Amino acid sequence: MKKIAILGSSGSIGIQTLNVVRMHPDEFEITALCVNKDIDTLRKQINEFHPKFAGISDENAYLKSKDLFANNITVFSGDNALCDIASLDVDILVVAVVGMCGLRAVMCALSRGTTVALANKESLVAGGKLVTDTAARAGKRILPIDSEHSAVWQCLHCGFDRELKRIILTASGGPFYGHDRNFLQSVTPEMAVRHPTWNMGKKISVDSATMMNKALEIIEARWLFDTEKIDYIIHPQSIIHSMVEYIDGSIIAQIAKPSMELPIQYALSYPKRIKYDAAEFKFDKNLTFSEPDESVFPLPKLAKQVLSCGGNAPCVFNAANEACVQLFLDNKIGFCDISINIENILNTWDFIHNPTIEDIYDTFNEVYEKLMTDYNK
Amino acid sequence: MKKIAILGSSGSIGIQTLNVVRMHPDEFEITALCVNKDIDTLRKQINEFHPKFAGISDENAYLKSKDLFANNITVFSGDNALCDIASLDVDILVVAVVGMCGLRAVMCALSRGTTVALANKESLVAGGKLVTDTAARAGKRILPIDSEHSAVWQCLHCGFDRELKRIILTASGGPFYGHDRNFLQSVTPEMAVRHPTWNMGKKISVDSATMMNKALEIIEARWLFDTEKIDYIIHPQSIIHSMVEYIDGSIIAQIAKPSMELPIQYALSYPKRIKYDAAEFKFDKNLTFSEPDESVFPLPKLAKQVLSCGGNAPCVFNAANEACVQLFLDNKIGFCDISINIENILNTWDFIHNPTIEDIYDTFNEVYEKLMTDYNK
Repeated sequence: MKKIAILGSSGSIGIQTLNVVRMHPDEFEITALCVNKDIDTLRKQINEFHPKFAGISDENAYLKSKDLFANNITVFSGDNALCDIASLDVDILVVAVVGMCGLRAVMCALSRGTTVALANKESLVAGGKLVTDTAARAGKRILPIDSEHSAVWQCLHCGFDRELKRIILTASGGPFYGHDRNFLQSVTPEMAVRHPTWNMGKKISVDSATMMNKALEIIEARWLFDTEKIDYIIHPQSIIHSMVEYIDGSIIAQIAKPSMELPIQYALSYPKRIKYDAAEFKFDKNLTFSEPDESVFPLPKLAKQVLSCGGNAPCVFNAANEACVQLFLDNKIGFCDISINIENILNTWDFIHNPTIEDIYDTFNEVYEKLMTDYNK
Repeated sequence: MKKIAILGSSGSIGIQTLNVVRMHPDEFEITALCVNKDIDTLRKQINEFHPKFAGISDENAYLKSKDLFANNITVFSGDNALCDIASLDVDILVVAVVGMCGLRAVMCALSRGTTVALANKESLVAGGKLVTDTAARAGKRILPIDSEHSAVWQCLHCGFDRELKRIILTASGGPFYGHDRNFLQSVTPEMAVRHPTWNMGKKISVDSATMMNKALEIIEARWLFDTEKIDYIIHPQSIIHSMVEYIDGSIIAQIAKPSMELPIQYALSYPKRIKYDAAEFKFDKNLTFSEPDESVFPLPKLAKQVLSCGGNAPCVFNAANEACVQLFLDNKIGFCDISINIENILNTWDFIHNPTIEDIYDTFNEVYEKLMTDYNK
């Protein structure tokens, strides 16, 4: 029986993690759940899964609701709730919060030797070296929770590390793939958030449209799999979730129905696989591929340069994107200005070679504030 | 340095095995080469690879050429040459001969604990249980040399045996896929051997056209991977060489340029992978899939029934096909008569539950002769 704690249990990944736990009561038990401020969802989850611990990051939400919790559950609250939960004795900490707050929680868990299943992009993108060094010292690895990295992780079982030729991430290309830079100039926030196949949040929809999502995945893959041999290819059907090519030319690909529950379950059940009652996969689509056009969508290529720089450059990259997406959604800058601004700020920002965790947070906040201030004057 | 012996070194698989050995002089050395009667090719190969042993199955070919061999090489000849070579002390015996003669050689090698890399279909199809029982007793496994089974073997590294949901072999469908039974009635030998993408021998071209090749692969897969959970799917581009689905719904697929050298090299280098200097794989084709139509091409389905029967049924199936293909090529029967005759003879032939190797050879010869006699009266 694996003991699981979830940071961000009321969000999409948190809810789907609980779906997986519900399907396998003999495999997993919930030790702790943590939300930002969605008390209603938290209370329903507590009633169903009976964790010993809960966390509520928003102090006001906690104060309004604290009488509602039974005596047999310990409730942490406030800014430190994430780290309090991350420091508990569990087998796997699922980090499904969004934003930079994930980094500190991941570091707490890894420092005490807890395996982390990671859906939070920011911790690896901004703090990749810190996080992976800490994991290595604890002898733990970070288990990816997302379709692409789970696919790579699975495919990497077909060879030894030294036999890897390259990772090939697949990319849907986003809603504007095939268009030229001229067209992109005319893209409005309304166009960017109307994603053709997925109903996603606004930030992630814009990241999909700029291909920043793939750029971030390249950075995550570098830290998860300790290699810079990472390519990507456009595969609009998103049926092949990613691939690994070995030195003998053999390519191993992972295919599955688009569902987050599968990568979540694989991370929780690893090293074994357990039954998942999905309908049988149907090969009813033609699978197509094309080479990315980096003159139109420059961010994935920029991500590779950012990785070569190292230090706090990936953090600058991510912070600049967060600010620019917000500025774009607020109609302060155009669609193409997102990548232009990111590149500009990367060229001017103070480089820190070996950032501490405080340096990472400072860099993030300073870059973000600088851009927001510049355009909101 | 792995010591390799090759049975059938002058054939297509034998020559490609030597290509792999030539590329990796630090990994492999040739201990023995065996041909049927192609003395010219054998002598060139001996001059290049300097084996200590050679074999020539055809006694007349041997007698005509025996003065041509140097004193420092031991030459076996005649009917027992294959088993003499198979009994040598080597790390891997590559069995690349065609036909039932492969079975006895495979049994010789496994009995003395030599790992067998197998391109010979007949030994596993006709003698699957005998061969795998012998391998199990020796604690050795049979390494597949063909694209589909090598793909399955590689993909099986992504999970434990008990986690397998099904093997999914891919099938090009052959030159007549999509046609109906009416059309197939009109297929002539000339049409069947004109394969669209591969330049193959006549027997294998007809097997591709009837989908008997996939039927035989289903039987081989059952013995190689000890499971009857085997499906197949039509994938005309033959880019995905086969797949494995796990109980969690994750499907792992192997992709590579069509080349026999890659599966040969994987079998020789296993458990590691070694460099293969192929051009980078280009994803420049759309990959399509369709469900097989077993009312038009019944042989793969029949193969599964044959497996359920067990005993000498797979041997009857294979022998009947060999005879029927010859009769079809000789214009004695029509294209659709191949599968009809195979099914008929399966229903009437004497069943042997636990055949010995002699029973297997007898069954093969009797079925083959019966059909040839019936149609050549």
